[in-house]
Amino acid sequence: MTTVNDSTASGVGAELTNEEIFAAHEGGKLAVGVTAPLDSARDLSIAYTPGVAQVSRAIASDPALADRYTWTQRLVAVVSDGTAVLGLGDIGPRASLPVMEGKSALFKTFAGLDSIPLVLDTTDVDEIVETLVRLRPSFGAVNLEDISAPRCFELERRVAEALDCPVMHDDQHGTAVVVLAALRNAAKVVDRELGSLRVVISGAGAAGVACAKILHTAGVGDIIVLDSRGVVHSARDGLTPIKQELAEFTNPRGITGGPAEALRGADVVIGVSVGQLAEEFVATMSDDAIVFALSNPDPEIHPDVARRHAKVVATGRSDFPNQINNVLAFPGIFKGALDVGAREITDGMKVAAAEAIAAVAADDLSADHIVPSPLDPRVAPEVSAAVAKAARADGVATA
Amino acid sequence: MTTVNDSTASGVGAELTNEEIFAAHEGGKLAVGVTAPLDSARDLSIAYTPGVAQVSRAIASDPALADRYTWTQRLVAVVSDGTAVLGLGDIGPRASLPVMEGKSALFKTFAGLDSIPLVLDTTDVDEIVETLVRLRPSFGAVNLEDISAPRCFELERRVAEALDCPVMHDDQHGTAVVVLAALRNAAKVVDRELGSLRVVISGAGAAGVACAKILHTAGVGDIIVLDSRGVVHSARDGLTPIKQELAEFTNPRGITGGPAEALRGADVVIGVSVGQLAEEFVATMSDDAIVFALSNPDPEIHPDVARRHAKVVATGRSDFPNQINNVLAFPGIFKGALDVGAREITDGMKVAAAEAIAAVAADDLSADHIVPSPLDPRVAPEVSAAVAKAARADGVATA
Repeated sequence: MTTVNDSTASGVGAELTNEEIFAAHEGGKLAVGVTAPLDSARDLSIAYTPGVAQVSRAIASDPALADRYTWTQRLVAVVSDGTAVLGLGDIGPRASLPVMEGKSALFKTFAGLDSIPLVLDTTDVDEIVETLVRLRPSFGAVNLEDISAPRCFELERRVAEALDCPVMHDDQHGTAVVVLAALRNAAKVVDRELGSLRVVISGAGAAGVACAKILHTAGVGDIIVLDSRGVVHSARDGLTPIKQELAEFTNPRGITGGPAEALRGADVVIGVSVGQLAEEFVATMSDDAIVFALSNPDPEIHPDVARRHAKVVATGRSDFPNQINNVLAFPGIFKGALDVGAREITDGMKVAAAEAIAAVAADDLSADHIVPSPLDPRVAPEVSAAVAKAARADGVATA
Repeated sequence: MTTVNDSTASGVGAELTNEEIFAAHEGGKLAVGVTAPLDSARDLSIAYTPGVAQVSRAIASDPALADRYTWTQRLVAVVSDGTAVLGLGDIGPRASLPVMEGKSALFKTFAGLDSIPLVLDTTDVDEIVETLVRLRPSFGAVNLEDISAPRCFELERRVAEALDCPVMHDDQHGTAVVVLAALRNAAKVVDRELGSLRVVISGAGAAGVACAKILHTAGVGDIIVLDSRGVVHSARDGLTPIKQELAEFTNPRGITGGPAEALRGADVVIGVSVGQLAEEFVATMSDDAIVFALSNPDPEIHPDVARRHAKVVATGRSDFPNQINNVLAFPGIFKGALDVGAREITDGMKVAAAEAIAAVAADDLSADHIVPSPLDPRVAPEVSAAVAKAARADGVATA
């Protein structure tokens, strides 16, 4: 009997077997249900012809009525090209579909939102944008998922510009929102102001870039980003456009070098790469250090090792305390955005989501409890309400 | 209180009011449900990370496993550009969405198939084909719907060529299949062989063209097609490609002129247009004439008037006997095709569907009962089984 990575599975009871995994995915994980009954000729005449013509005619006269008389205002398109799936990399759209179905299942379970996975047999940014523009009348929001960096940055920007609806690349912002939430609470645990922390982000992919941006937006002044070549700084050759952008607002002390130079005296390190965080460098961080080692299933540094040098440790795993899991963020973010007819997802809405997540855990704050459980049913409604309020405050709500 | 067209609604009990119609469509008519539970951390680990990675990895190694471990083999994309919606015409994709949601509801109710409405903000045939090619890994079949003629002919042909899955424009073939079923039984009622009938088709749009083709395939040798300019024949100027194709296999007696010339001595007239069938011409048809006046909500000739001159009369309406309704065909056709992994929908599968529909009504055959009720639960399973068998016989089944 084959089993999934023992250590990863150990947090969820007995080991997962391939047999039970494949059985659970047999035939896929979603179904489309009917909310209007079709049991009689009269039902048919109401839901379909001739009755439906009245509804179609009304929308033709006033397109805004589509929000009310179709399912689009509760429908998220979960869109992927399958280029950066979990830890598997570029496995293509067909192989990514079980993950997207899972994402849809999470939307439904945690926020009651309907969603449809759309996996695309193209990796061309122009073509993906064009395809979503053509499909725009079919849904109310777009969750981009598992799209490789650096294409994901341009893609998200262009899709958001092209569509008058909420658009978010979850691998970037879902992670960043939960990281901000966790860091807010971790700062409280070590009795520090968020803005005063020296933060190192190890990894400049989708999640690393978004973490840098949201922490900057939230007032963290001293952020250093590390990639495989060391500290990202403006004097480095061959920076991609997104790393040039990072270099402009990070590294205020002008550090050069690698992890050794970056981590020395740092208060926080956030691992969002497949690389390692060497214990010897983590040991040089400040007292009361905070370590988020988020790579899955293998954290950049084992949490037991990190804890020798850090006051607060978080991972992406369910079998250690402080699981940083996107599911805390995306269901409530999209729910809140759709509830108020938001035409975009602003930085303010993301920060509000992070604050709401942090607040749920704040009642019972400790070094081992800086974020709520992913299954905590209080989270999505709180996030949704906070995001809706922020959308109104930011002037992007329409309903 | 406003009401929908009284005469149309009268077959379904009390009049439909706008209030109840709009209430039934509030928020749309569909929902996406989860078939795998997500109640515990263990459920999450199976349906999402880390368990789902096993399934994705397996599909990456063997793409055919996507049929088994995703929802695609029971998922129909209901695709429209909103150019020919019900009797409303070109009302655009947003306004067409309530109809497509209704179509999805019918797929679910009658065949247990899941489907997602995809309404496209383009009417360009190249762009629609391209969009569906890019989306191909997301679904298992395509139901094209409410797309205007003559674009629908080229579009269906090109989508079917481009995709290795069942593709059908329902306005063409759903109608044609039910017409063939009805005509088989009508022929029995008047004690004639199907192949010996002289048939006039009034209308050369989506349904008219498909009716001509399926009747020809089924062995009807004498078909005349009428459009707004009269009989379609090869000597006429300015025939579109599809009408040139019709001219090649119809009108064997070389009739020219209009409805008067076409209907004189005809055994069958099938109205599939918004035009009228004048009583004076219907009166010149053969004894035991068969009249299908399928325009909705206003038949080409009122059935009570037609009955003065015809033995069998059918309409598209629920408030008269013999309702020719596509819902008798499309749910079972797609179900049967998907069940056996058919890579296309062949003429043989369509004819088999018609025979199965006819057979359900055959037990209780009369001039007022040539087709089953649209709500008859026996129909879709019978159609599905017949279509699956025909797919195997035609060598297009893969499962």
